[in-house]
Amino acid sequence: MRWSNTLIPTIKEVPADAEIPSHQLMLRAGLIRQLMAGAYTYLPLGWKAIQKAAQIVREEMNAADAAELHMPALQPLGLFERTNRKEAFGSVLIQFDVPRGNRQIPMALGPTHEEVVTDLMSHCISSYKQLPLTVYQIQTKFRNEERPRFGVLRTSEFLMKDAYSFSSSVEQLDEIYDRMYRAYCRIFARCGLKYLPVEAESGPIGGDASHEFMIPADNGEDSIVYCETSGYAANMERADTGRTAPEIKTSANAGTLEKQATPEATSIEQVSKLLGCEPSQMIKTLIYVADEEPVAVLIRGDHEANEGKIRRALDAASVEMADDKTVQEVTGAPTGFAGPVGIKCKIIADHDIPVIENAITGANEADSHLLNVNVGRDYQLETTYDLRNAEAGDPCPKSGAPLTIVHGIEVGHVFKLGTKYTEALDAQFLDEKEKRHPIIMGCYGIGVNRIVAGLAETRHDEKGLIWPLSIAPYEVLVIPLNTKDEEVMQTAERYYSELKAAGVDVLFDDRNARAGVKFNDADLIGIPYRVVIGGKGLKNGEIETKWRTAENAEMIAVDAGIAPILEALEAKKQEEYQAANVPE
Amino acid sequence: MRWSNTLIPTIKEVPADAEIPSHQLMLRAGLIRQLMAGAYTYLPLGWKAIQKAAQIVREEMNAADAAELHMPALQPLGLFERTNRKEAFGSVLIQFDVPRGNRQIPMALGPTHEEVVTDLMSHCISSYKQLPLTVYQIQTKFRNEERPRFGVLRTSEFLMKDAYSFSSSVEQLDEIYDRMYRAYCRIFARCGLKYLPVEAESGPIGGDASHEFMIPADNGEDSIVYCETSGYAANMERADTGRTAPEIKTSANAGTLEKQATPEATSIEQVSKLLGCEPSQMIKTLIYVADEEPVAVLIRGDHEANEGKIRRALDAASVEMADDKTVQEVTGAPTGFAGPVGIKCKIIADHDIPVIENAITGANEADSHLLNVNVGRDYQLETTYDLRNAEAGDPCPKSGAPLTIVHGIEVGHVFKLGTKYTEALDAQFLDEKEKRHPIIMGCYGIGVNRIVAGLAETRHDEKGLIWPLSIAPYEVLVIPLNTKDEEVMQTAERYYSELKAAGVDVLFDDRNARAGVKFNDADLIGIPYRVVIGGKGLKNGEIETKWRTAENAEMIAVDAGIAPILEALEAKKQEEYQAANVPE
Repeated sequence: MRWSNTLIPTIKEVPADAEIPSHQLMLRAGLIRQLMAGAYTYLPLGWKAIQKAAQIVREEMNAADAAELHMPALQPLGLFERTNRKEAFGSVLIQFDVPRGNRQIPMALGPTHEEVVTDLMSHCISSYKQLPLTVYQIQTKFRNEERPRFGVLRTSEFLMKDAYSFSSSVEQLDEIYDRMYRAYCRIFARCGLKYLPVEAESGPIGGDASHEFMIPADNGEDSIVYCETSGYAANMERADTGRTAPEIKTSANAGTLEKQATPEATSIEQVSKLLGCEPSQMIKTLIYVADEEPVAVLIRGDHEANEGKIRRALDAASVEMADDKTVQEVTGAPTGFAGPVGIKCKIIADHDIPVIENAITGANEADSHLLNVNVGRDYQLETTYDLRNAEAGDPCPKSGAPLTIVHGIEVGHVFKLGTKYTEALDAQFLDEKEKRHPIIMGCYGIGVNRIVAGLAETRHDEKGLIWPLSIAPYEVLVIPLNTKDEEVMQTAERYYSELKAAGVDVLFDDRNARAGVKFNDADLIGIPYRVVIGGKGLKNGEIETKWRTAENAEMIAVDAGIAPILEALEAKKQEEYQAANVPE
Repeated sequence: MRWSNTLIPTIKEVPADAEIPSHQLMLRAGLIRQLMAGAYTYLPLGWKAIQKAAQIVREEMNAADAAELHMPALQPLGLFERTNRKEAFGSVLIQFDVPRGNRQIPMALGPTHEEVVTDLMSHCISSYKQLPLTVYQIQTKFRNEERPRFGVLRTSEFLMKDAYSFSSSVEQLDEIYDRMYRAYCRIFARCGLKYLPVEAESGPIGGDASHEFMIPADNGEDSIVYCETSGYAANMERADTGRTAPEIKTSANAGTLEKQATPEATSIEQVSKLLGCEPSQMIKTLIYVADEEPVAVLIRGDHEANEGKIRRALDAASVEMADDKTVQEVTGAPTGFAGPVGIKCKIIADHDIPVIENAITGANEADSHLLNVNVGRDYQLETTYDLRNAEAGDPCPKSGAPLTIVHGIEVGHVFKLGTKYTEALDAQFLDEKEKRHPIIMGCYGIGVNRIVAGLAETRHDEKGLIWPLSIAPYEVLVIPLNTKDEEVMQTAERYYSELKAAGVDVLFDDRNARAGVKFNDADLIGIPYRVVIGGKGLKNGEIETKWRTAENAEMIAVDAGIAPILEALEAKKQEEYQAANVPE
């Protein structure tokens, strides 16, 4: 492609409203332009990168025996009512009525396609003989982002690869899940991303039912609990800590239990300020309702309760915060003054609770807290649990080494769905004995735009973007130094057309512009290999070549033609593939 | 791809609600499934055909120096207000409010992208030096179809290639238009379509400002005026007739002018029935307002007035039907009784009017018509015009041979837009003298889904679909006759994997099903080349190959490997390309 025939509106200045490097650089390098909040046009360079990422995704999905199809974006709202996702999505689901004759048809724009694909399979699948089956699409999704931000990382419209598997047994599901997991590792590695498969929520199917694929990045919105020693990685909801249950005994230093007036101080922050104590000296007593029974959950004042862990500790199907009425019944006080001493419900505590000497807790009485609360003497515990979010420094559940918290951008998610959708939408199969069962599903998503934005966020220097060859919008940039010089242009045109004919993706900077402008733009848009033609070099029968990240340029003889360039590209491709550690 | 890993739900019966062959066959061959009225999922076979068509479109657009980008589907409604297209689209435009915090943002789903691309260019283009520039996308469009029908030919969501050119001069526009026109001819020919470029509405830029690309098909919704002798083809709005102005003189057989009571008979049908005459004996007197001046237009009773021709004959900027008040003022009678005799406004007539002897017309008086109306005696004409739609048998404007009316499916449209959008959205450039001008635009659309539906509609027999190799979902279908026979399966697997490795797009029917079922499905889905393995043939060391449209199969030796298949495919590709008459 000639630069003059395409649209690469580079910008020198850092755009004022772009906060993070990927947003700034994608704007500056002319990859994207905003249409309105949360909606971007991909300009030619950006779209070429997206297409290359999509093609890698497609190749690996095909290799994993998934069949590509294409479902509509416009969907009947009724399907979301049948799966209860209309409510669950809330304002994220873009919905509206469409006129058809005298009627108004309620429709939604697909935020994902579980409903549509399950409805499809309910009509196409009848026998176990047709299973397992995995289908996928690379298609535009719509999710209203109330606060779109970070450029193309969080927009209301984005390109997603969503795959859905259908099985007659959990074993079939496990086999497909593993295949998809491996395909995901290959995809992100081939795209040149450093990625981390992260344990996520375990679903109703049990086992390792869900993994998120994260790109570690300082500006990532997700927090990942990570152990460098063991490689353990889990998201905050899921991450276990390697802490063990301490001995439960009353401290030898137990002081006298005292009641203290704390008028209107209901939060840890307010009480610790009022009493001049550290939050870590306090016990949060959170009243939950687990399967309709109230439970008091004790968490150290400076820690975050983890509802998934609480639910699993209680072996409950559902867990939710109690309402004010229940709190009043259980504690005899309004919300904000609960404590373990004398409370009228079951108590469970985090591992860090019994070791707090002379703790401060609510007094189960309005506007009052207790000082010098000690386990064994003032309240009883039989055992303790891991009930809170992991923190940096907690021991890794695998190695015991200290965990760290890193930030990441979620680019993929694999999930064992089970029968939630097939039960709601009547997608069943007949087994060998002609007995009906709901089909067992898995779903597997990749944010294609985020692959490109993630590369921009993690691969750049002060001059601009640094693409891997596999995703670079163009592999080679040919720059004639002086477009008015006939010999320069003839040579440059020859390199351009010969490289193109050899199947190289090449951009030809045919602009009549100063060399400095061209070099700056070249660094900014980050094309991996640069071929400069003109000046003294050409007079000596040589052209200058340079990798984007190399310190120095290399001269090659014009007489050698494009062969040395093709060799260099091939070697670099091999090198990048090796370095990416693409799994078999 | 193995049949067992993909989804090809073929159907024996003709679906009850599918009226036309393409709809019936695309359902039966498992290419599509309906999600709701006007919305279809493309199943794997259908989607592969779409992708092949899209790739041909992409290759030809790139060869025509257009740069691919990707614009959002969600668009701010305000842009459509600025171009007055919110009203023009009416209920076709899908629009709604999207919540963002406390605000509701009015948005629309793009029916096309003139607004968005012009808004983009208004920010990216400033100088004539950046022009000309052509961009395109292959993207999903949304248009609410009040009556969706004909399967995927008319749906509310479809895949469109839309290109937009931006130029600083009409010469640049003309050059791009011609390049796009040639690219379109290449695209449709390569896709194996018989196509007809049809003259369409001439725009504000003049010249051949618009062409539609039609696939002649009995079930097509569009009517094309066509001359086999000259090749002249135009749509109904645009088509000229080669009729010439007749001599204007009063007939020697003129009868006596008579008034006849025709109570409440206001239409040609009612009057002809009441008076027992042919519509061709009557003159329709249509009252228009052309640039604010009322005009009476005379058209033979059995003909259709053509507003574009009327506007051009009057050299008017706008022409519209007069309201009842204006009709009353001009004729002295309510609507339905206008006639040329004594009317108080300018009269223009079609060529066929003065030759009607003793015509019947309105009497310019309520509930009355005149009999024996004759030109020269009862009303005056200086000249006549071509003011009506062409009809079969009219002379071709080029050859004079009789025109025919054929039906067609519109698959593409190229249009010289001019400055309509760039003026409305302030997209300007500075010329060499730093003077501002609106950029001159062209737009160029292709309905990608219609390429595939058009092939299904025009290429089939009683057994099923007949794909050209260029668009066929798979080029080769490998059928083992008995999947339980180890030798059969080993040989079949070897052919499958070797063909795949050689880059052939191959489908492997690994189903454990009767040969009859497999052969019927093979004919229905229409894969061009069939390789059958098993039975007596294999015992003799041979496999059976057959083209979808061939009468007979051919046996080839297993020892020869896949080489004869590759040769046959290559020869067929060449043959189809030659037959398609792809222009240079």
